[in-house]
Amino acid sequence: MNIPSKLIEDAVTEISRLPGIGKKTALRLALHLLKQNEVHTEALTLALTRMREEIQYCKTCHNISDAEQCSICASAKRDKTLICVVEDIRDVLAIENTNQFQGTYHVLGGVISPIQGIGPEELTIESLLERVKIAKEDEPVQEVILALSATMEGDTTSFYLAKKLKEKGIKISTIARGIPVGGELEYTDEVTLGRSIMTRINYSSD
Amino acid sequence: MNIPSKLIEDAVTEISRLPGIGKKTALRLALHLLKQNEVHTEALTLALTRMREEIQYCKTCHNISDAEQCSICASAKRDKTLICVVEDIRDVLAIENTNQFQGTYHVLGGVISPIQGIGPEELTIESLLERVKIAKEDEPVQEVILALSATMEGDTTSFYLAKKLKEKGIKISTIARGIPVGGELEYTDEVTLGRSIMTRINYSSD
Repeated sequence: MNIPSKLIEDAVTEISRLPGIGKKTALRLALHLLKQNEVHTEALTLALTRMREEIQYCKTCHNISDAEQCSICASAKRDKTLICVVEDIRDVLAIENTNQFQGTYHVLGGVISPIQGIGPEELTIESLLERVKIAKEDEPVQEVILALSATMEGDTTSFYLAKKLKEKGIKISTIARGIPVGGELEYTDEVTLGRSIMTRINYSSD
Repeated sequence: MNIPSKLIEDAVTEISRLPGIGKKTALRLALHLLKQNEVHTEALTLALTRMREEIQYCKTCHNISDAEQCSICASAKRDKTLICVVEDIRDVLAIENTNQFQGTYHVLGGVISPIQGIGPEELTIESLLERVKIAKEDEPVQEVILALSATMEGDTTSFYLAKKLKEKGIKISTIARGIPVGGELEYTDEVTLGRSIMTRINYSSD
């Protein structure tokens, strides 16, 4: 593509660095901004700059936040004795959207992945162990729920965390793997189906 | 979606104003920028701001340009007696990519559309007529090619332009409508197929 303007070419190059946006889409977006009033571009760049410069991470759970402590950690309604460990911020949003969880979170910032060079020290694991230790004095953590991806890396991280947390004598659980609600048995893969049978829920004990 | 940060929410709102980008994609892009080094966001916002503030439009053909005259109008290699009228800048890029056209362009900035409230005076039609008139003195325009969309609005605009330009005594042509190269007859719609027969090209006269 031979763009007759260096200015647009630069903008297209920068926009197409974003995930899932190619050169053609980037050009469409750039030309859209050119067609619109200048205030739209100003509002966009200001919002991006402010977000990048002023964003903070909660010092307790590492969730995104506008203050030192995120709204979830700061809320008196949330159960501080229950911590749900997730990979990243989007997982927090996903679980929050279910309206099923009243505890707090801990954002790891990724999972252990030797291939990508991510070891335990790159994640916020130390901070989680510290958090559990400090909480012991006034509001002890009762349970840590591991809500990581059902991938090899996710499972590895779960095992690592479980080992570390067991030393502290806390209940550790993991979210259920099984057939999605509305899913049909015959279209579920063998591994998922196998796991869902092994980890079956006992109705009669309720 | 309940985003726990006003800063991210603002960024998501602004990003999702772009065409074809919804709230979910906008959030993905915002979180991507947060994960990356700050310099990436800075480069993006700078490129957008510079593009919007410094962009110029060629005073001859209204194409995007970094100077008063675009590189096509300024080039000595391009045939100034041949003007191709297009709707917008993307059409210029599309035709340039074919490497088949050595004339110059004229960017209308849209097509006549009473429904959207776009009349001839909203477009650069007056500037085109003026351009033809001025050119008459040293390098007279020989032919104007109308390369507008094959829609009702495009056709209306073509008719309007043809009428205005006929008064000036210039050859007027329009790009061929027909079956795309590689297209099959049986899957072509009736209107296109009908037109391609009516406007058939005479091989024997070559």
